[in-house]
Amino acid sequence: MTTVKEALEIILNNAINFGVEEVDFLNSVGRVLKEDIVADCDFPPFNRVSMDGIAISSEAFNKGIRAFKIEGIQAAGSQQLILQNTENCIEAMTGAMLPNNTDIVIQYELLTIENGIARVNLDEVKNFQNVHLKGLDRKVGDILIPTNTLISSAEIGVFATVGKSTIKVAKQPKVMIISTGNELVEVSDTPEEHQIRRSNVFTLVSLLERLNIKAEVTHMADDKNSLLTKISALINEYDVLLFSGAVSKGKFDFIPEVLSNLGVEKLFHQVKQRPGKPFWFGKKENKIVFAFPGNPVSTFVNCLKYFYPWHYKSVGLSFENKNQAILSEDYYFKPDLTYFLQVKLTQKEGKLFATPITGKGSADLTNLVDADAFLELPDDCSNFTNGEVFSILSYRSF
Amino acid sequence: MTTVKEALEIILNNAINFGVEEVDFLNSVGRVLKEDIVADCDFPPFNRVSMDGIAISSEAFNKGIRAFKIEGIQAAGSQQLILQNTENCIEAMTGAMLPNNTDIVIQYELLTIENGIARVNLDEVKNFQNVHLKGLDRKVGDILIPTNTLISSAEIGVFATVGKSTIKVAKQPKVMIISTGNELVEVSDTPEEHQIRRSNVFTLVSLLERLNIKAEVTHMADDKNSLLTKISALINEYDVLLFSGAVSKGKFDFIPEVLSNLGVEKLFHQVKQRPGKPFWFGKKENKIVFAFPGNPVSTFVNCLKYFYPWHYKSVGLSFENKNQAILSEDYYFKPDLTYFLQVKLTQKEGKLFATPITGKGSADLTNLVDADAFLELPDDCSNFTNGEVFSILSYRSF
Repeated sequence: MTTVKEALEIILNNAINFGVEEVDFLNSVGRVLKEDIVADCDFPPFNRVSMDGIAISSEAFNKGIRAFKIEGIQAAGSQQLILQNTENCIEAMTGAMLPNNTDIVIQYELLTIENGIARVNLDEVKNFQNVHLKGLDRKVGDILIPTNTLISSAEIGVFATVGKSTIKVAKQPKVMIISTGNELVEVSDTPEEHQIRRSNVFTLVSLLERLNIKAEVTHMADDKNSLLTKISALINEYDVLLFSGAVSKGKFDFIPEVLSNLGVEKLFHQVKQRPGKPFWFGKKENKIVFAFPGNPVSTFVNCLKYFYPWHYKSVGLSFENKNQAILSEDYYFKPDLTYFLQVKLTQKEGKLFATPITGKGSADLTNLVDADAFLELPDDCSNFTNGEVFSILSYRSF
Repeated sequence: MTTVKEALEIILNNAINFGVEEVDFLNSVGRVLKEDIVADCDFPPFNRVSMDGIAISSEAFNKGIRAFKIEGIQAAGSQQLILQNTENCIEAMTGAMLPNNTDIVIQYELLTIENGIARVNLDEVKNFQNVHLKGLDRKVGDILIPTNTLISSAEIGVFATVGKSTIKVAKQPKVMIISTGNELVEVSDTPEEHQIRRSNVFTLVSLLERLNIKAEVTHMADDKNSLLTKISALINEYDVLLFSGAVSKGKFDFIPEVLSNLGVEKLFHQVKQRPGKPFWFGKKENKIVFAFPGNPVSTFVNCLKYFYPWHYKSVGLSFENKNQAILSEDYYFKPDLTYFLQVKLTQKEGKLFATPITGKGSADLTNLVDADAFLELPDDCSNFTNGEVFSILSYRSF
């Protein structure tokens, strides 16, 4: 059987570049930048006043002058003034250009102003005191944000500053999420005794929304011919199909057979893990199929463990899940499988601790609500000890 | 001067409940639940088959029977079958109702089936083997998700399962974000020598979007009369005004005076911190005003440190920022102020490390791109040592 490590490798080897699109800069958070963002001028673009006060010539100060006649006010957003008499001063505001013939600013807190004269109570000043020098932060042409950066609020301000009102980002795959299973009814329906409502597809929609993918959903009955026709159409129209259910050993688990009939190459079926073992993965040319088992916890963990990194790599993020947590109590799991243990996370003094929240198995979706993450316990061990560190797949942001 | 701790206390004491609204369950991620979500039936709602195989009576097995004639197939989504002869079996699929007169399922892997007879190679079976018993996870009426939960993808599946196609969530405040400063031009404009483009308001829009608040933006010139008229209108229409700029000691820093003229009560002005010291906070009846200093890093850190927790408390999340990181090198900061040090975060073995990324001061917005978070260094100390643990304000999710 395919190990978790092998499965992930196969999946990452099948990452696909979906190209580039241009979006409004304000709609780009969570997307992956596909161009270098370059300084269109020096940062700051001029010698900028960084405290409210008076701008003077340090030469005058060093000559012993401590009382400066105010010639005018240099406001932010006004053209640069010129200090006419270098033994005078100009009041200068934060964000303004430093007036010509001045090189330092003395803040109001250190002044007394009376009858148009500013008096300074200082013995010495520093070079360019309270002046943010032109080009100090970055020079024109510097790369401010490199391509393949995951965009956060911090980048938004830089886009605005350099005048990028639209930016190039990785295009998203077109994804269809498909539930199967005759036992499923709509959310708004009242199930009969032998039925349950559809839920996995909505969980998947929501998990993909975290990646900024707007997926579509549909449902198919457990009928081989109808599956063939419908999936055949979808695989032409979408880049990725995500299935939930019908991949195990049941009499109506038609998905692997139907996909094979449609020429989708199986890259693996069944992974040495719990939950989520019956996972099927394949491709047809540049179309990718993730067929997850139908149990809610299986679908959930497989999406985090496999679809997420596949997507990160596809959009150009260098992927490596470095998130780890410290197991906070001993745990025993015998089967020779990688076990995705549901855990509650707690932070303490810069350390992340994982406490097992053992549910009633992969069908117990309410347990997902009580936990925050999955702790990945490797298959080559059965006894896991308080204090040991393992990888985590977290699904909460708070 | 107000300390950081006092400022936060004052802000949290002015949290406001904006009520409740009903949204489509699929649009609820990141919102705060405002009703208990209750199991509408037992979970699972029936004795559910959890492996594909044959359903038999354990009594027959215990009498020594190992070959079972197959009476039929119990599919998921079909009404419950009845095993007519309790020494026979019914093939039963994952997700199906357990047939009447059976109590265990033996999976296909342990069977050989020939000529309609399933032979079992087992010495013993467990009670209710491969059966997920009705009500084992939760009972009808159990609270599955309590009110005031921050909704993630995990909750979405539960909403669907219990048939909640719309759910009650905390209503968001109506927020207007206002830039001031005559030096500012639009993102699509080319600034003249003394100008720069607007950026803070867009950073704030994006920071508020992380809280699922869709804020609006506007700009006002540094003109006292025009500010009076415009702010007067906005304070009637919006729950919260966020300003960026014009709160310091400059000649054109009219915001505190104008707010005071409009009857907005100042709750504090200036906080013992760097950056972001000139922060002004006030209220008028149930309207709240956050007036942040205009430097990009100041605005950014103040939004994370003050607006975020104010919002968490307003929507009913029990707020306590437990996020901490371990300083990875010695750092010295002399002034008697809380210092929000920009840091890069790295995870290692379940520990979170913070490495200083010292920029060129609060106007250096490109430095936000190079960092991930702010480390909050307290004001009662100047020497901070490698290995010490401090609170962080992180702004990246990856």
